[in-house]
Amino acid sequence: MSVVKLASPSSTRIGFIGIGVMGTSMAGHLIKAGYKLNVFTRTASKADSLVSLGASFFKTPREVAQQSDVVISIVGYPKDVEEVLLNEKTGVLPGFEPGKISIDMTTSKPSLAARIYEEFKKRGAYALDAPVSGGDIGARNATLSIMVGGDQEVFDACLPIFNVMGKNVRLMGKAGYGQHTKMANQIAISSGMIAMCESLLYAQRVGLDCESVIQVLSSGAAQTFSMSNYGPRILKRTFDPGFYVEHFIKDLGIALEEASRMGLVLPGLIQTKMLYDILAADGKEKLGTHALMLALEKINGFDKASSERKAS
Amino acid sequence: MSVVKLASPSSTRIGFIGIGVMGTSMAGHLIKAGYKLNVFTRTASKADSLVSLGASFFKTPREVAQQSDVVISIVGYPKDVEEVLLNEKTGVLPGFEPGKISIDMTTSKPSLAARIYEEFKKRGAYALDAPVSGGDIGARNATLSIMVGGDQEVFDACLPIFNVMGKNVRLMGKAGYGQHTKMANQIAISSGMIAMCESLLYAQRVGLDCESVIQVLSSGAAQTFSMSNYGPRILKRTFDPGFYVEHFIKDLGIALEEASRMGLVLPGLIQTKMLYDILAADGKEKLGTHALMLALEKINGFDKASSERKAS
Repeated sequence: MSVVKLASPSSTRIGFIGIGVMGTSMAGHLIKAGYKLNVFTRTASKADSLVSLGASFFKTPREVAQQSDVVISIVGYPKDVEEVLLNEKTGVLPGFEPGKISIDMTTSKPSLAARIYEEFKKRGAYALDAPVSGGDIGARNATLSIMVGGDQEVFDACLPIFNVMGKNVRLMGKAGYGQHTKMANQIAISSGMIAMCESLLYAQRVGLDCESVIQVLSSGAAQTFSMSNYGPRILKRTFDPGFYVEHFIKDLGIALEEASRMGLVLPGLIQTKMLYDILAADGKEKLGTHALMLALEKINGFDKASSERKAS
Repeated sequence: MSVVKLASPSSTRIGFIGIGVMGTSMAGHLIKAGYKLNVFTRTASKADSLVSLGASFFKTPREVAQQSDVVISIVGYPKDVEEVLLNEKTGVLPGFEPGKISIDMTTSKPSLAARIYEEFKKRGAYALDAPVSGGDIGARNATLSIMVGGDQEVFDACLPIFNVMGKNVRLMGKAGYGQHTKMANQIAISSGMIAMCESLLYAQRVGLDCESVIQVLSSGAAQTFSMSNYGPRILKRTFDPGFYVEHFIKDLGIALEEASRMGLVLPGLIQTKMLYDILAADGKEKLGTHALMLALEKINGFDKASSERKAS
């Protein structure tokens, strides 16, 4: 079965499932680019702004799938991906005709992505795994990195859609390899976030002007996206997501599971996961990933009154 | 005593002590900018290329100091800084007249920088601590970040000299605060290097094309100077310094000592120091910092034949 032809935006119907921090911006770009959008999200009110821009809301992923040529999903956990795409009654798969394309942009398990690919293939349909990097800022500015796994032909057909949402879009390999690349991405971010927070913690404690520290470090070998984008938010004590702690913990868990499966010991990743678990245990799982600073402050006793610490 | 007047480059004599990976490039830029350079380094042959460009070689830091208005030092360890600047017989200090300026660009102890400042002040001379960031690339391209501690007036006098070697030059506070900023810089790099190496280790093991991984990660939230600059060297298995492992271990040791003095627990820094110590214990201390990859490979048993691992 050949891949569905995707002509001009105005004649291409895109389903969009999952209207969270990322999804809202990404779906908005697609509407602005002229695509006809069909949306589903568990909390219907989250789709209001998109509906006011012209999107149609449906009650199940299956109905979205029936009305769309391509369905993009970006939800929370692998179990949500499985539910949304593969549920026999309400999922995208039973709503698909042959030739249609599912693009899952959730960060999820490589093994699940491979299974989804096979399940869709059985029915003559197609699936790509296409997780993203770049955070809320990247989604808003349409500068996301998009790491794709699947077939070249399907990737080529979807490239115009990807290009509306991101800047660096790459086919990384077969099904699951978009997710594997995203795991490499999360591993690269993980201990880097510790590095950034510990650096600012040190600078604060010494009494340096931390804004100057961020600026001077950012023009040398310590330069990172995290420092430039999350450093200033930490200084303002603004810990809104961004990217949720609970989702990052999910990602790091998947990465550790995959590493373990391959017999790889990654000490930095293990430690970062532990610090994020400490943060979540403290009730901070709905904050952004840069709230790792709060876990470091906690283990340093900064959550106690400084007078109390000095007295002891 | 007023700060020595530094007029045009051609009428300013700069002493330069320590002709290593960094110093060679930095001193070269100063000669090209028109400064008269007087150099000293323990291994005289390392100064040959600078002498051929017109620099004069002297046998002690003291002689350099006698012939110079400003003396820049960039050597290995705090004990070398102390020897070069403060030795009563051969050091810069006994060679200085009042008003002259010592600029130590070595990464060294904040407390030593404060002591040097006081010792020079007693004799009517001046001292800045001005460590740099940006690695061999930054030194070569004159794009170093320079983090300065000391007096505003002395900083202002030296700014034209700093601007020849770097791009982002900042006075961060009083004596020692250039070093403190550099410690924040090294802390920010430290766990970030683990992150980068573990990410590539994962990607390799999965079988991804690591060049593509570096490119796609570098356009998203995982983007770092380390990934862009050291990632490709790791893929080529080129572990030349760059920045020496043994010097980074020195820096991380100073940072840990300072953190401990302030009662700060920095788990990422502790772990990174440990991994670098493992690397040095394996005889790799003269490689570049990105050789951390070799320590991670070692703890993962990659140094054994893969057949042996599979058989066990």
